[in-house]
Amino acid sequence: MRSLRKTVLLAIVASVVLVMALLHSWPTRAYTTVDVWQRPGPAVERHLEERFPEPDHRSANIPYRVKESVAGLLARNGCVCEGESGGMNLPFAQLLFPRVSAHPLHTAFEVSELEEMKQRRAKEYQGFQMRSQSPADMLIVAEAHNPLQYPTQGVEVRPLKTILIPGLAVQDHPRELYTVNFTSTLGTLNVAAEVGGVKVKGDGEMHMTLTSSLLSNLNRQLQFVTYTNTLFHPSTADTVQFETEGHQAMFTIKVRHGVTPKLYNTGPKGEYNISALVTIATKTFLRYDKLQDLIDSVRKYYSTVTIVIADDSENPKMVSGPYIEHYIMPFGKGWFAGRNLAVSQVTTKYVLWVDDDFIFTANTKLEKLVDVLERTTLDLVGGAVREATGYTATYRQTMSIEPGEEEGDCLHMRRGFHHIIQGFPNCVVTDGVINFFLARTDKVQQVGFDPRLARVAHLEFFIDGLGSLHVGSCDDVIVNHATKIKLPWVSQSESDKTYAKFRYPPASSDATHTKNGLLYFKNRFQCLTHN
Amino acid sequence: MRSLRKTVLLAIVASVVLVMALLHSWPTRAYTTVDVWQRPGPAVERHLEERFPEPDHRSANIPYRVKESVAGLLARNGCVCEGESGGMNLPFAQLLFPRVSAHPLHTAFEVSELEEMKQRRAKEYQGFQMRSQSPADMLIVAEAHNPLQYPTQGVEVRPLKTILIPGLAVQDHPRELYTVNFTSTLGTLNVAAEVGGVKVKGDGEMHMTLTSSLLSNLNRQLQFVTYTNTLFHPSTADTVQFETEGHQAMFTIKVRHGVTPKLYNTGPKGEYNISALVTIATKTFLRYDKLQDLIDSVRKYYSTVTIVIADDSENPKMVSGPYIEHYIMPFGKGWFAGRNLAVSQVTTKYVLWVDDDFIFTANTKLEKLVDVLERTTLDLVGGAVREATGYTATYRQTMSIEPGEEEGDCLHMRRGFHHIIQGFPNCVVTDGVINFFLARTDKVQQVGFDPRLARVAHLEFFIDGLGSLHVGSCDDVIVNHATKIKLPWVSQSESDKTYAKFRYPPASSDATHTKNGLLYFKNRFQCLTHN
Repeated sequence: MRSLRKTVLLAIVASVVLVMALLHSWPTRAYTTVDVWQRPGPAVERHLEERFPEPDHRSANIPYRVKESVAGLLARNGCVCEGESGGMNLPFAQLLFPRVSAHPLHTAFEVSELEEMKQRRAKEYQGFQMRSQSPADMLIVAEAHNPLQYPTQGVEVRPLKTILIPGLAVQDHPRELYTVNFTSTLGTLNVAAEVGGVKVKGDGEMHMTLTSSLLSNLNRQLQFVTYTNTLFHPSTADTVQFETEGHQAMFTIKVRHGVTPKLYNTGPKGEYNISALVTIATKTFLRYDKLQDLIDSVRKYYSTVTIVIADDSENPKMVSGPYIEHYIMPFGKGWFAGRNLAVSQVTTKYVLWVDDDFIFTANTKLEKLVDVLERTTLDLVGGAVREATGYTATYRQTMSIEPGEEEGDCLHMRRGFHHIIQGFPNCVVTDGVINFFLARTDKVQQVGFDPRLARVAHLEFFIDGLGSLHVGSCDDVIVNHATKIKLPWVSQSESDKTYAKFRYPPASSDATHTKNGLLYFKNRFQCLTHN
Repeated sequence: MRSLRKTVLLAIVASVVLVMALLHSWPTRAYTTVDVWQRPGPAVERHLEERFPEPDHRSANIPYRVKESVAGLLARNGCVCEGESGGMNLPFAQLLFPRVSAHPLHTAFEVSELEEMKQRRAKEYQGFQMRSQSPADMLIVAEAHNPLQYPTQGVEVRPLKTILIPGLAVQDHPRELYTVNFTSTLGTLNVAAEVGGVKVKGDGEMHMTLTSSLLSNLNRQLQFVTYTNTLFHPSTADTVQFETEGHQAMFTIKVRHGVTPKLYNTGPKGEYNISALVTIATKTFLRYDKLQDLIDSVRKYYSTVTIVIADDSENPKMVSGPYIEHYIMPFGKGWFAGRNLAVSQVTTKYVLWVDDDFIFTANTKLEKLVDVLERTTLDLVGGAVREATGYTATYRQTMSIEPGEEEGDCLHMRRGFHHIIQGFPNCVVTDGVINFFLARTDKVQQVGFDPRLARVAHLEFFIDGLGSLHVGSCDDVIVNHATKIKLPWVSQSESDKTYAKFRYPPASSDATHTKNGLLYFKNRFQCLTHN
């Protein structure tokens, strides 16, 4: 009896375990493979940059006269590295009439290594292009007199999700039978409802056909057409072909996650709470006295604002105090490495960049800069820096990139700005500013300060930010610059001398190599022009 | 005589100075103002998410039958925070049949502060929307039987530059006079050449009309139409209206800088030079013994790879050696602050993240991970971590965001992956991986590790990366995890105890508040579900 019960019990337990094991290993889904190899896809049509398109046979004989004032503005094939020549050779000429100088960047490299650098850069650029091009940038032209109605923009689906495709219809002349079909490549087509009198073929597949003898029924069915993304990619686009007899159309469905916000808690309502909104960031090297002067001057006006300090001095001293955050780096890691470190630590909505030899005064009203960023769509707003002489600089720079061919693009920088900002008469929109600015922390962190730039560098940050940073500059928020003028009767301190050695490296050192070499390799420029 | 000469000389000098001063102050250009205020613009049409669009009068009587298997996939209005209920209450049930649990995130806040948090979040979100929405996302539908031919996608101009608009034509039935006109808002229209027999009105303005009695001449003229962006913005789009009698069309011209590449020098050709390609990054806190074990194990296989260490221990010890870069942070700054610091310092193409208690073995072949990123378009590839028990984890997570309404979106995380990678049978595509991964440095720096996350956090990085990081996971590159199993007979060291106090905070501390509170506020989620 007992042994029977035991056996039965064991049998039950064994079966249960077996069933559970079976259920657990039951294939829940079959996985498909995806091809994510880096290989050149079908040539993506770029928008036409040739001066004038080839005329077809109908237009070949129609005369025209070039309008040079406009035609001259069109992009050329490739860019040329040239500045302005000539000009008066008078004293102060460069000051009064700044001429544009052109700097070919390949000169950063030894002749012996240049060819290999070019090839390596071309290979890296190819990979970059394959990762950054999207079918959503391809030129599509809507043909005239198309009986098809369809969405040309604004259709988007989250990866692996399903949407109704809006705006589909067909307006055809009376026929016996109306047929439309769809073809997609990164997902499948289907219908969310079935309309009487319409035959659906290929629903759930990448090619679907709808047929009906009644046009209004077909159009009602078209309102229920769905697209489901099946080939996962975080940010791409599917080009859908839509056809009816004798006519075709192409439209794009973007397949991507939405932009997830990165919002910051700004503290209680009311006046701008600078401590809750702003963190001051700076980098220091060997100039503890100047750094302390900066801190003391900040504290006169903002006693609880956090100050983040990146320090790559050789024998770091302790810098402490309430709301001071001091980071020690390996000796001499460098300027942009320090800047990137400092901004990487900011937890407030805005970050204020200052150099360690600035001095806050009663004119350094951060509230004004916060006001600009709170009320406009700008991402960054620069202020003004006043030298001991009284000369105040905003260092506004406009930048544009002229596409080049295999040699690389041309970067053009000019002093100045684009527009004055409505409502802020002391402020303008530009592309680069002086090293005293307030910015949205998430945007600055996203652009970053390239740690490869060890010594002299400034506008490289704004170059990296082109297209993502919307930059402004106001000349009514001023910080003082502790004097750099070497007064002849004041002897340099030891730390000043060491500082100068690192800060102003001799012409043949790595610094120029890194700055121009980086523009050449990293950003794929061949030329830099500026005035 | 002499005094006459002097006077003449003085007069000349005075005139020259006067002329130079005049020329210098000569107004070189008149600046226009630009409106960059954050205010809600015209309502941007989002793509239709209602289940079924309203039928018009023609379709109202046509019957249809809902296809639930497809209709059920469409997004609902708002998302609901619910997990899976019920399920077997057996031992190991959660292990064998992981149920989905749902976590409403507003619970991170005290009831008293929740309402204010919601309002503050809504205000910040509004600002974010105004900065991130673009006319290029607006729904545009091409009408059928339009005599106009025009580009629906792929037209782009650099800020303040000029392009030819491609693909313009009109195909009309014979008329006495053919007229087309264009209207733009962020730039002006013009013609690069003037074609005989066509009258151009409004060239150089925001509204331009072309008229001709000869259709082929008008079409030839249309091949010379140009657009010049005049209102600067680093990344926006101009919606151009194109009309002829009785018909209109709308198309978008993107106004933006191109994406500037950020390429890395990869060292000499040949086999993968791991030291030139990869930097190892880690964060440490109080576990110098484990950190040293990690370093020693790395050096067995990679003697010259740079290791960047972010350290926020209270009394930092010196960690030195060739290719070691040790950064000291303020005490207890935190986990993600340290991660963000470490990656901010990387100057190689790839960065390998490791925890400070990992041990490299012969199975930790970085070359395999480099191979994946060199040959695919993935941005990040995770490996596997083996515990002392032999259990090896890849921690693959898929993620999707279901849009919600004012309450916020719902984030859904599920274990698993999307596809197997063609050509790499041990690798898959997914959204989140374990804390052992190789990644493109520029992409990781762009996404960043939010320094607001002080303690327990992991997938938040991948959440922030949704849409920009293309993530993979390979299970054949394995690193060992120094054991965490608390053996009963081994007493914890003092540093172990302090570590545990910081690493595993009690439930009511700030950590949970920060993690969920951050998901609620920063990313605007209302709910997190996972299994």
